[in-house]
Amino acid sequence: MMAKQVQQDQLYIGIDGGGTKCRATIYSKQHGVLGTGLGGPANPLHGLERTLESIMVSTQLALQDAGLRVEQVHELNAGMGLAGVNLPALYDKIMQWDHPFQQMFLTTDLHTACIGAHEGQDGAVIITGTGSCGFSIVNGESVNYGGHGFAQGDIGSGAWMGLEATKAVLLDLDELGPTTRLSGTFKSHFNTLTAMGIAEQMAGQPSSVYAKLARLVFDAAEQQDEVALSIVTQGADYISRLAKRLLENNPPRLSMIGGLSEPLNKWLDPEIAKLVELPKQPPEMGAIYFAIKNVEQDLIKAN
Amino acid sequence: MMAKQVQQDQLYIGIDGGGTKCRATIYSKQHGVLGTGLGGPANPLHGLERTLESIMVSTQLALQDAGLRVEQVHELNAGMGLAGVNLPALYDKIMQWDHPFQQMFLTTDLHTACIGAHEGQDGAVIITGTGSCGFSIVNGESVNYGGHGFAQGDIGSGAWMGLEATKAVLLDLDELGPTTRLSGTFKSHFNTLTAMGIAEQMAGQPSSVYAKLARLVFDAAEQQDEVALSIVTQGADYISRLAKRLLENNPPRLSMIGGLSEPLNKWLDPEIAKLVELPKQPPEMGAIYFAIKNVEQDLIKAN
Repeated sequence: MMAKQVQQDQLYIGIDGGGTKCRATIYSKQHGVLGTGLGGPANPLHGLERTLESIMVSTQLALQDAGLRVEQVHELNAGMGLAGVNLPALYDKIMQWDHPFQQMFLTTDLHTACIGAHEGQDGAVIITGTGSCGFSIVNGESVNYGGHGFAQGDIGSGAWMGLEATKAVLLDLDELGPTTRLSGTFKSHFNTLTAMGIAEQMAGQPSSVYAKLARLVFDAAEQQDEVALSIVTQGADYISRLAKRLLENNPPRLSMIGGLSEPLNKWLDPEIAKLVELPKQPPEMGAIYFAIKNVEQDLIKAN
Repeated sequence: MMAKQVQQDQLYIGIDGGGTKCRATIYSKQHGVLGTGLGGPANPLHGLERTLESIMVSTQLALQDAGLRVEQVHELNAGMGLAGVNLPALYDKIMQWDHPFQQMFLTTDLHTACIGAHEGQDGAVIITGTGSCGFSIVNGESVNYGGHGFAQGDIGSGAWMGLEATKAVLLDLDELGPTTRLSGTFKSHFNTLTAMGIAEQMAGQPSSVYAKLARLVFDAAEQQDEVALSIVTQGADYISRLAKRLLENNPPRLSMIGGLSEPLNKWLDPEIAKLVELPKQPPEMGAIYFAIKNVEQDLIKAN
């Protein structure tokens, strides 16, 4: 009787790991979303221990929020989207984890974001936040472009814009490049009058710190600053090319996700901008769809 | 008698600290160079303890090479050029060091390189190796441009070229940028067929690792690869602008120092290229001239 009930209304947990937080959502097909939880950083490329800890924290909070008992973690079918698990070594390491779930299905954060955006259906996504990349899944085939990391890739991302702006300001202050109103903005922002004062504060900073400068670039572009316009246009052109590359695979939908999708939109190729549709569901729901699909496939195989 | 002899033929040590090694040269005006020593990394921005240790190792080796006794370290007037001591906090920290020398005179590595290149006279230098920057000293006034560090500054440097080439290859392999023969070269160099394979190996690498790719860019430029030509030309154009900026102060001489000065030369603005003269002495001799000048000024003040 119990086994049958479980089979009829399996419990799922969708986990979306990110560089700053980890989101977990508990769901059943009959009752929909039962509860959610928020944990700390969960990017295994920046630390596996921390990632697993954040997954457990968000899971426990989601169980509590759903009014479930702590032990019911063993009843959860987990779908999980994490950065970097396209690397077989990292995938294997996480799959070797002595996890508490009934089952665990692991894929990349891009994959779950894409599944979420299109409510489990085929489609393509472009993610532009601190970093940037493109992903599509069509008829079971996935491809991804970009996402090569700061400072060598991730064109059009917040970190890229912040870095390009910093380079331009340092050139201007040395009188070795075009003048830009960004120089005045940066002087105030960094509370310094010199190029060296800015360079020192930014040297060795992670991409997240550069990404915080992106809004200054958009502001200056709005004010028709040539240098800022050139940065925003270059970034948006890359994102438009990325979109066209993804469209070659004929995904039925295209969404943009991340903090820069809204400010970038008006700078995109108009042909692309009009194709972009809002994501239907967040990545943690994508992780749930991923788990459901795997559980149901296993059931089909078992019968 | 002894005191008089010391005054007549003071012992000097010139120390040039760098990111990978520390060079020390012992010198007297009467006898010229008495001995040299080579120590480990001595960039205080990457570690003060290590820097002081490398300074002492190179000093001891130079004393030994000069046939002097270990205790004679107390007779040495030290001139020292170190990165980052333009920052008052770092300058003060090193000056607070309980050093074993008779006296210690501290300045930036740029300053000693410039004094060395022009044998103690006024002049300008451009340094292009892993990083890049410009420095001039004319009538006691020094200025410097660039040198803002990887990845936000140091245009035209080895690390900058390596990064630009990596960006171009990743774009090409994603079919989101122009094709370049650098892609084939990088695939062999990194023993991988994919953009992600290259991105993973370069992610988070220090500037020195990017700088090692610079020679591949020069090779491809020689073979008329458009992308490599554009990188080398952009880098050389910046160095030419940097030179013109330094020439505004009317330095009597201009030298280029560092691993990229030779390969870059043919790509410079011909007006600049023909002005560039070879450095007369290495930076550690510049550090000696710096110490001599300070000791002699102190003597004048004392009399």
